[in-house]
Amino acid sequence: MFSHIKDLIIGPSLPTQAATHERLNKVRALAAFSPDALSSIAYANQEIYLGLVIAGTAGLAYAWPIGLTITGLLVIVALSYFQTIHGYPSGGGSYIVARANLGTLAGLVAAAALMVDYVLNAAVSLTAGVAAIGSAFPVILPYRTELAIALLVIITLINLRGLQESGTVMAVPVYLFLVTYLSMILIGAIRLVIEGPTPPATIPALPAVQPVTLILILHAFATGCTALTGIEAISNGVPAFRAPQAHNAGRTLIVMALLMGALFVGSIGLTQFLGVVAGPEETILSALARRLLGNGFFYLVIQFSTLGILAVAANTSFADFPRVSAILARDDFLPRQLRGLGDRLVFSNGIVLLAVATAVLIFVFSGDTHLLIPLFAIGAFLAFTLSQSGMVMHWYRERGPGWLAKAFFNGTGALATGATLLIVAFSKFTSGAWITVLVIPLIVVGFGRVNRHYQRVRNQLTLHGLPPSLRPAAPARVVIPISGVHRGMVNAVLFAESISSNVTGVYVELEPGAGAKVAEDWKEWWPDLPIVVIPSPYRSLVGPLLEYLDKTDFEHNDGQLALVVLPEFVTAHWWENVLHNQTASLIKAALLYGRRRSGGERVIVDVPYHLRT
Amino acid sequence: MFSHIKDLIIGPSLPTQAATHERLNKVRALAAFSPDALSSIAYANQEIYLGLVIAGTAGLAYAWPIGLTITGLLVIVALSYFQTIHGYPSGGGSYIVARANLGTLAGLVAAAALMVDYVLNAAVSLTAGVAAIGSAFPVILPYRTELAIALLVIITLINLRGLQESGTVMAVPVYLFLVTYLSMILIGAIRLVIEGPTPPATIPALPAVQPVTLILILHAFATGCTALTGIEAISNGVPAFRAPQAHNAGRTLIVMALLMGALFVGSIGLTQFLGVVAGPEETILSALARRLLGNGFFYLVIQFSTLGILAVAANTSFADFPRVSAILARDDFLPRQLRGLGDRLVFSNGIVLLAVATAVLIFVFSGDTHLLIPLFAIGAFLAFTLSQSGMVMHWYRERGPGWLAKAFFNGTGALATGATLLIVAFSKFTSGAWITVLVIPLIVVGFGRVNRHYQRVRNQLTLHGLPPSLRPAAPARVVIPISGVHRGMVNAVLFAESISSNVTGVYVELEPGAGAKVAEDWKEWWPDLPIVVIPSPYRSLVGPLLEYLDKTDFEHNDGQLALVVLPEFVTAHWWENVLHNQTASLIKAALLYGRRRSGGERVIVDVPYHLRT
Repeated sequence: MFSHIKDLIIGPSLPTQAATHERLNKVRALAAFSPDALSSIAYANQEIYLGLVIAGTAGLAYAWPIGLTITGLLVIVALSYFQTIHGYPSGGGSYIVARANLGTLAGLVAAAALMVDYVLNAAVSLTAGVAAIGSAFPVILPYRTELAIALLVIITLINLRGLQESGTVMAVPVYLFLVTYLSMILIGAIRLVIEGPTPPATIPALPAVQPVTLILILHAFATGCTALTGIEAISNGVPAFRAPQAHNAGRTLIVMALLMGALFVGSIGLTQFLGVVAGPEETILSALARRLLGNGFFYLVIQFSTLGILAVAANTSFADFPRVSAILARDDFLPRQLRGLGDRLVFSNGIVLLAVATAVLIFVFSGDTHLLIPLFAIGAFLAFTLSQSGMVMHWYRERGPGWLAKAFFNGTGALATGATLLIVAFSKFTSGAWITVLVIPLIVVGFGRVNRHYQRVRNQLTLHGLPPSLRPAAPARVVIPISGVHRGMVNAVLFAESISSNVTGVYVELEPGAGAKVAEDWKEWWPDLPIVVIPSPYRSLVGPLLEYLDKTDFEHNDGQLALVVLPEFVTAHWWENVLHNQTASLIKAALLYGRRRSGGERVIVDVPYHLRT
Repeated sequence: MFSHIKDLIIGPSLPTQAATHERLNKVRALAAFSPDALSSIAYANQEIYLGLVIAGTAGLAYAWPIGLTITGLLVIVALSYFQTIHGYPSGGGSYIVARANLGTLAGLVAAAALMVDYVLNAAVSLTAGVAAIGSAFPVILPYRTELAIALLVIITLINLRGLQESGTVMAVPVYLFLVTYLSMILIGAIRLVIEGPTPPATIPALPAVQPVTLILILHAFATGCTALTGIEAISNGVPAFRAPQAHNAGRTLIVMALLMGALFVGSIGLTQFLGVVAGPEETILSALARRLLGNGFFYLVIQFSTLGILAVAANTSFADFPRVSAILARDDFLPRQLRGLGDRLVFSNGIVLLAVATAVLIFVFSGDTHLLIPLFAIGAFLAFTLSQSGMVMHWYRERGPGWLAKAFFNGTGALATGATLLIVAFSKFTSGAWITVLVIPLIVVGFGRVNRHYQRVRNQLTLHGLPPSLRPAAPARVVIPISGVHRGMVNAVLFAESISSNVTGVYVELEPGAGAKVAEDWKEWWPDLPIVVIPSPYRSLVGPLLEYLDKTDFEHNDGQLALVVLPEFVTAHWWENVLHNQTASLIKAALLYGRRRSGGERVIVDVPYHLRT
């Protein structure tokens, strides 16, 4: 029944050979890799506005220079990644580039940073999407946590089913977003040219809660840098492009960067020169759209296309996070369960792990984008810096034609993102960045622990040093713990007799006096086999049995541990287990996982006896 | 570590021979068996008051006749149980008496009724105890659920430790309650004699929300009948008395009935004739105590002694419920886990079951006694009726000297309690009694199901019909599922070779192509043993393995099922399990509990390989 429900929601299992490795053309590749980067303007603009508005009209005047600085950073980072694409045409994720050029530790730090940022990207995109709709319909705002979780559940289920059609279906919201936003910015630009900027005198002055300080401006810049998250996506995905892969991926990156720049500069400029301000329950982009398009149909199209691109952006985390987890699991840095393809040929465990982590974030931060943002972008800029530094090392090691120019571009990228990383980490430290700063090293330590465990297991499992031919040992002494003389233990005794001539029945006497009757019955059926009755003054079953086993092993001292043959009832229905004591399971668990006094391995034989309905 | 915490809270294990069977003298027996009965006045009076006050002053005038009627009922029931004590000196619980004289079904109905009432007694006593303190300190009323649960936890832990000193320690609150309440009633009676009853004209008239109807009066009578709950306790516990047991128990019952009558008639009469009324946050007994003793020290003593007796009354459920459960488990009507004595020589599972059921009731009914009362007393009166009817049958069957008089007394008791049962069930049906009316038959059906299961198991376990001498079967074909060729499976292969000459390795190929390498390694180490590589297109491990086993069993058709030898890693620390796939556990579970195509029993051998730290 469970399997039927699973089939309905997730879909039936797919065979391994059904995995397709479809190549994307540039139009579909743009749709597949850009949503994370493009959608960032939805929250980056908002955060710059929120960061400055507390300093009133005087503060908001800094939005335009901050926006231009971030756009400059965008150009540097885009050029830097353009180089990565050509340097690593087989896919240059930050983990791979940093590990290959700067060592394993740098690679793991980049990986941990990326994984943290994927979780934050999913959480921030979903909450910002809900905020976009909440600007149009404030009535839903009290339920933003629930709505964000609902979106998360839908995206998780879609990803567990497997997104074979990612490039095609995802293209719809991406191009809808591009068309609507670019049209809106065009309309705004035309109005700005015709009407000229709104004169500052006519804009109602906003009161300043704080003075304009350097810290305030740096903080606004730092939160605005979230606009750059997702720009690395194309360099990870070069193998998905049609040949010539690096060439096409490079072109797509340039187009994406231009679109990002146009959207970011356009929206922030219009907000500035039209003097747009937002109420407490509205995003600044929503206020801009209202100003340009009124409250009607076109405004709603803008808001829903914002939600659309943000949902698709959250979805990119669901593609990237499980893939990075699987790569790390393959390299023994994460549990190997993250490595296996699920029923639907997707990394199901990674998807579930991401969904749970995202849900926790959304809950803890009450679905509020503004509270989540300080944690965000640190991971991305850390990974950027490590990846760009790695590229510098890469060019230096290769020293091919023109390597100096290439190293220069990547070096500039590394310096710019590194400086930004410091600004972001320091200016947002107390408002939440400390969590990320704390979590990333912890994850790296975890990677190391996991790796050490697998390494140790591998050393213990090697067959090196074993003699080339091993002779089977003589059949051991056999002990059969019984709960009474009945049909359920007959098979167990017969099996024990078939493999050994040294078989002993053992009865742990929970109620004083009960053992005599059992021993008598046993003697009647198996006069040749000894039976031992162990008293149990504390009415414990497992303890006295283990003591008895240790004792006989010690007495025989034949280099073997007594083999335990366990008769086990199996009830016809699982709920009938409530009616039985599960002694066989308890004994098995104690023998396998309990404290062991002797060094050897004790073989446990389970002889089931299935009860009929 | 867990074991240390347990020792601290519950205490270290006690050996079976430490069980004492202490005999109680009458003074201590009264303290042990009467709290449930005596404490009932705390809520019975309150419920009569609440039932009548909605009809205003005119309604409250009926409290006195209702109180007298219930006292009459008390006399009849007490006489009836006096007979039971002499008829069943070895302990005449309702289950035993009803089952012996009216058949198993009647016995089970009585048992189910009693168990339900024990749970309700615990819940009602604890909430009423909190209400008594809440009358003195209304500030705690918002936390009454939490406080009742806290009391429940304390009483549960005390009972899990084991109450060796029950008769002694429990005597303190019982006799404190008797002394304080009897003194208060005496003071009230003296004042009544000296000052005369408060003239009706001087009492402020209470407005009537409802008219005085027959239904209203019957309802008040029904809720007041909760005063009688617990009166059967002594008849269950005759063996705990000193010799002559029946004689001493009978005397104690008479004393207890007299005390109950005095407390009940006294408190209800004083309330009536002094014209006491209570505010919305106060119990009527609290209002009476305030009237007679003022707001000072003596008033607080009364309230705390009410809490004390109610806590001890709740505690009697913890003695009775586990004992009845154990008796039913011994007779195969409840899971046998309820039968076993725990570490501290108490029926720990029964105690925990009662605690959980009580906690659920307190939560669901928000710790409100008034909401719980309609569910209460039905079980008690059902058990009374069945037990008294059983006694009539008992005397009729024995026909000893004077049997007709004895049968008459018990018959009167049965009729009176039966009639009361009908009144209680009907008048409180819609306000909650339907729950009890529904639950008791469900429990009886459950008893039947459990019994049928054990009966069937017993039939399947009998050795009747087996040939007198069984010969061990030849060693079977052995299959070893492996996850690779490594040290962890060496012991398993050696063991398999030691018991059979027909050993096959099986590798389920989750990733296409991986099997060839494994087969090669295997051939290097065990050139004589065949290895089978099973493809698994859907990346499932267990399914293809089970299919392979079914297939080979079918092909060999030798009347045996292939024996499975499972190499199993055991990690040094439990948390390391997260890093492994638990395939051995999955295979074991599937083989033991999964759907079976063939009729035989498949032996499973676990060959562990313990990883070092």
